[in-house]
Amino acid sequence: MSSYDVIVVGAGHAGIEAALATSRKGHKTAIFTIVLENIGQMSCNPSIGGPAKSHLVKEIDALGGEMGRNMDKSFVQMRILNTKKGPAVRSLRAQADRKVYARNMKKTLEAQENLDIIQDMVVSITFDKDKKVVTGVKTKNGLEFLAKKVIIATGTFLNGLLYVGDKLVEGGRMGELSSKELTNSFIEMGLEIKRFKTGTSPRIDKRTIDFNELEEQPGETKIALKYSSRSSDEEVLAKPQLSCYLTRTNVNTHNLILDHIDKSPLYNGTISSIGPRYCPSIEDKIVKFRDKDSHHLFLEPEGFDTNEVYISGLSTSYPAYLQEQMVRSIKGMENARIMRYGYAVEYDIVNAKELDYTLEVKKIKGLYLAGQINGTSGYEEAAAQGLMAGINASLALENREPLILYKDNSYIATMIDDIITKEIQEPYRMFTARSEYRLLLREDNADLRLSKYGYEIGLLSKEEYDKVLEKEKAVYETIDNLSNTNVGTSNKVLVELLEKYNETIKSGISLKELLRRPSFTYQDVKEIARYANVSYQIDFRDDIEYQIEVFIKYEGYIDRAMKMMEKNKKLEEKKIPKDFNYDIMTGIGREAKQRLNEIRPYNIGQASRIMGVTPADISVLIMYLDGRLS
Amino acid sequence: MSSYDVIVVGAGHAGIEAALATSRKGHKTAIFTIVLENIGQMSCNPSIGGPAKSHLVKEIDALGGEMGRNMDKSFVQMRILNTKKGPAVRSLRAQADRKVYARNMKKTLEAQENLDIIQDMVVSITFDKDKKVVTGVKTKNGLEFLAKKVIIATGTFLNGLLYVGDKLVEGGRMGELSSKELTNSFIEMGLEIKRFKTGTSPRIDKRTIDFNELEEQPGETKIALKYSSRSSDEEVLAKPQLSCYLTRTNVNTHNLILDHIDKSPLYNGTISSIGPRYCPSIEDKIVKFRDKDSHHLFLEPEGFDTNEVYISGLSTSYPAYLQEQMVRSIKGMENARIMRYGYAVEYDIVNAKELDYTLEVKKIKGLYLAGQINGTSGYEEAAAQGLMAGINASLALENREPLILYKDNSYIATMIDDIITKEIQEPYRMFTARSEYRLLLREDNADLRLSKYGYEIGLLSKEEYDKVLEKEKAVYETIDNLSNTNVGTSNKVLVELLEKYNETIKSGISLKELLRRPSFTYQDVKEIARYANVSYQIDFRDDIEYQIEVFIKYEGYIDRAMKMMEKNKKLEEKKIPKDFNYDIMTGIGREAKQRLNEIRPYNIGQASRIMGVTPADISVLIMYLDGRLS
Repeated sequence: MSSYDVIVVGAGHAGIEAALATSRKGHKTAIFTIVLENIGQMSCNPSIGGPAKSHLVKEIDALGGEMGRNMDKSFVQMRILNTKKGPAVRSLRAQADRKVYARNMKKTLEAQENLDIIQDMVVSITFDKDKKVVTGVKTKNGLEFLAKKVIIATGTFLNGLLYVGDKLVEGGRMGELSSKELTNSFIEMGLEIKRFKTGTSPRIDKRTIDFNELEEQPGETKIALKYSSRSSDEEVLAKPQLSCYLTRTNVNTHNLILDHIDKSPLYNGTISSIGPRYCPSIEDKIVKFRDKDSHHLFLEPEGFDTNEVYISGLSTSYPAYLQEQMVRSIKGMENARIMRYGYAVEYDIVNAKELDYTLEVKKIKGLYLAGQINGTSGYEEAAAQGLMAGINASLALENREPLILYKDNSYIATMIDDIITKEIQEPYRMFTARSEYRLLLREDNADLRLSKYGYEIGLLSKEEYDKVLEKEKAVYETIDNLSNTNVGTSNKVLVELLEKYNETIKSGISLKELLRRPSFTYQDVKEIARYANVSYQIDFRDDIEYQIEVFIKYEGYIDRAMKMMEKNKKLEEKKIPKDFNYDIMTGIGREAKQRLNEIRPYNIGQASRIMGVTPADISVLIMYLDGRLS
Repeated sequence: MSSYDVIVVGAGHAGIEAALATSRKGHKTAIFTIVLENIGQMSCNPSIGGPAKSHLVKEIDALGGEMGRNMDKSFVQMRILNTKKGPAVRSLRAQADRKVYARNMKKTLEAQENLDIIQDMVVSITFDKDKKVVTGVKTKNGLEFLAKKVIIATGTFLNGLLYVGDKLVEGGRMGELSSKELTNSFIEMGLEIKRFKTGTSPRIDKRTIDFNELEEQPGETKIALKYSSRSSDEEVLAKPQLSCYLTRTNVNTHNLILDHIDKSPLYNGTISSIGPRYCPSIEDKIVKFRDKDSHHLFLEPEGFDTNEVYISGLSTSYPAYLQEQMVRSIKGMENARIMRYGYAVEYDIVNAKELDYTLEVKKIKGLYLAGQINGTSGYEEAAAQGLMAGINASLALENREPLILYKDNSYIATMIDDIITKEIQEPYRMFTARSEYRLLLREDNADLRLSKYGYEIGLLSKEEYDKVLEKEKAVYETIDNLSNTNVGTSNKVLVELLEKYNETIKSGISLKELLRRPSFTYQDVKEIARYANVSYQIDFRDDIEYQIEVFIKYEGYIDRAMKMMEKNKKLEEKKIPKDFNYDIMTGIGREAKQRLNEIRPYNIGQASRIMGVTPADISVLIMYLDGRLS
């Protein structure tokens, strides 16, 4: 019987990060997948990033994960969204060549030392019923494997059911198998199973789209946009890019959908499980926002080698013939031909309150869950969990402290805290609005926030980490330098710019003060400094210059956010012993006690976010922890 | 309801050729596949060609098919087999980059005019029960499509069952779905269904193979080996190549297999259907050839981007744990790790005696079957049938005569004649030995034999056909020229070569006579001719020079074969009217009459090859056809 340190089940976005993390940290790892061809598939739209999601990708990258690096090798388009909004919501969005993305991921996995890839379906998880410790897995081919840690990342494959109108087939994705046995292991462990739903859009033949009247959204080709500071600018710039196109639903589309609402499995009672509120099907959008007579749709190319185009925003489980009518009611798609029909998928998840912050199942040691099985939605959310599960499984093998991130240093922690603490009622998607610290948790500083951990864990090399430290040093030194350099009307460049922006200065002003003004860019300040003949370095890499600008321009906001964070941090960080006995507490509500017992929060911060636990309950709890009550 | 001229079901090697042929001929075509990702998959080993199979590929190419051209874009290795044997068995064999092959095929299909690709599973064929004419198909997504012609190319997907020891799963390939409904349509049509079996080998991780003691088989990189004269030499030569490696089973392997023969579903009664005699599982080989204590195995790389290596020759349905032991008993694989386990697959086929020479189902007009569904095995066999079905469906739409090839002009005809005439008892594979005309049906002259048809049908362009005509002209003119040029001992080059080969000439000798001698090559003859300062062209493309040499060296054999062919041809070509009434014949055996009624042969040649039809029966039949009996 083969024996591994870690077994990862599923080779989607979560499983890949988990397996790469554990094997890179030197633990003998096996990753199982139903078909090797489908490693790293993008099941839904061919894009990664956008607000909050790009933040996750950059955090994954800072911790030594693969998603960002792989996307930098596999994109067909890179764009910055929200350039006119604040830096907290500015975000990179990349369109992938779906096949190339998957191929590059498979190549990376195959080349990884300590990692075995096995095509076989895992049908059960074995565990010691007395010790409540995982022991391994059994497979469809009749094999048994031993493992110290098992990470489950099955996506939508657990009892997956696919709906196209009243047509129902089993499958994890359309045309693929589902896993019908593995859920039983979770039931046997006493974990709570729920059923969620998500969906995908039809894909059409590029040759049948009339692009003439559609708004083109080209990629950014002048500067090197990329997810990973470990990717080379030259390679990213050398890649050709494809355009997306914008179109919209209209009254005819909406009427068609409303007239046939009884044909939707979401509305005729066939599907009762809950879909993602923030990535809804088109029928959901139209029913819930009856006053809107149009919704944006993005036509996203699926790769350089294919004519398939994904209609982002048109996720639907309508019957195939109605999908065709729906598509053809929309501008530019009057003659469009569907190559793959959209569908809804219903699948088993485990209630994430069963998990610890490390994503380990509380009731079974050594078992970790990551990705859609925890009720989340999205490639980035899945990858982030996979990475955290992989890191924590590794640290446990090494008898080291787990890596627990905090809501004030990452979106990753915000997500994990949300899913394990709050009772998630629908597929969970990341948003910038989910973080009270979003002004601190920007895309641009993910490396400054988290590379330290990536390096300490051993997933970032010394060189990679040193590069981040250099950036940090350059930023802070430059800010200092700029605040110490005063300029006045003798500076010709300054005078010209003041005139250009129709602004004035009273007397001498520091370069930092100038840059704080909305009109002035770092490029302006460099010109002024150059004229002033300053002796310190002012030219840096794009990302460093951008960072300096953001730090200075938003210093006030950032400072306020920092203060709030500091205040919360003390509370947040106050740990609750794992074996703390909630039952002995008096003066605390029955529901609070029950929920605390269920969730077993890691610290006061988490406890305070549990539904049904009031601030009064928290005060009592703190007093017990401090020994003021007992 | 969408309407097409032609609907093709299945996008494997047969379906692809069928759909490309009909759409290239201007007929509106739809091709259906369960998952778009799996278009053009090589389900078994990653190679195309070898004896008889390469002949098929070159015939496909001469008729305007795609397989050869696609392989020329997708290979990782090209080699000529049997270089020391005669030209009839000389053959090209190419190893494919499995993923690249499939991707290039998908790209070609997607770019093809008149061709729609649709991801949906066809669940039934609709037909007019009175008129016995096909009308279209219905799909899993609940759609109905109309079509004038329907071509079924479902491979192993009809009720596919996969075996790994006693583990049984449904599927067309491992990890993929099977089609459980479509067979019912054939039953409803009154067609005879049989069940065949085939299998595939485990694939292992390159990093775990010890190549040091294995025999390397590198590709040929000095001259441009390619399947299609339409591919460019430069591109083929520019591609890097990978090596294969040779190893062998041994007594330990054999003992292991024999000791556990009860674990094989082929031998413990689980699988009763019949597998391919000439591509047997390793357990078959060892049981049937007990005296052999070793069998060759080829380790074939699956692509540039992957570490997967296919163990060609180790097809097995043994339990997974025994597959591991089996692999590890073999030199170079002592520490090998299996990435995908081998398995057997059992699937429904239609008895090909239900088909006409055109591959049309006799009982239902407009319905064609191609590939494994007809009981054949092999990518090349499938592609050839797909192409012929596509061509004949097109010609029928155009009210043109069908394209019926003959056993004296092609392996394709040999195969079709065999499967529709003989009662195929096991998966049918092409061999050179299957053709009595194999000396005429060489790989090197496939273009000369068949391009005429490719051009007449409209699948070869004028330029492509002209190139073949130029070759033909160059070959015959040069042979003439060489036979008219006499050389003697005044030719210094000749004298040197005679000395080198230790040969003599009596007096003057023609260059053609010289080239007929085994020692002399066309390159020698060119040198002699150059010295003789001949005025005609002697330098040609490699394939033309090779052709001249083959024609001259084997002229005697070829002439004899031609004479036999001519004699048979008259008989062969004597057509039997489609509505000929066999029942009126007297003086003919009961079995013969019954079989003739079943098969309804196209001509006397076919009739004479039907099992149970004796030469005496044929004489009677000819007399009836000639009106000498009635």
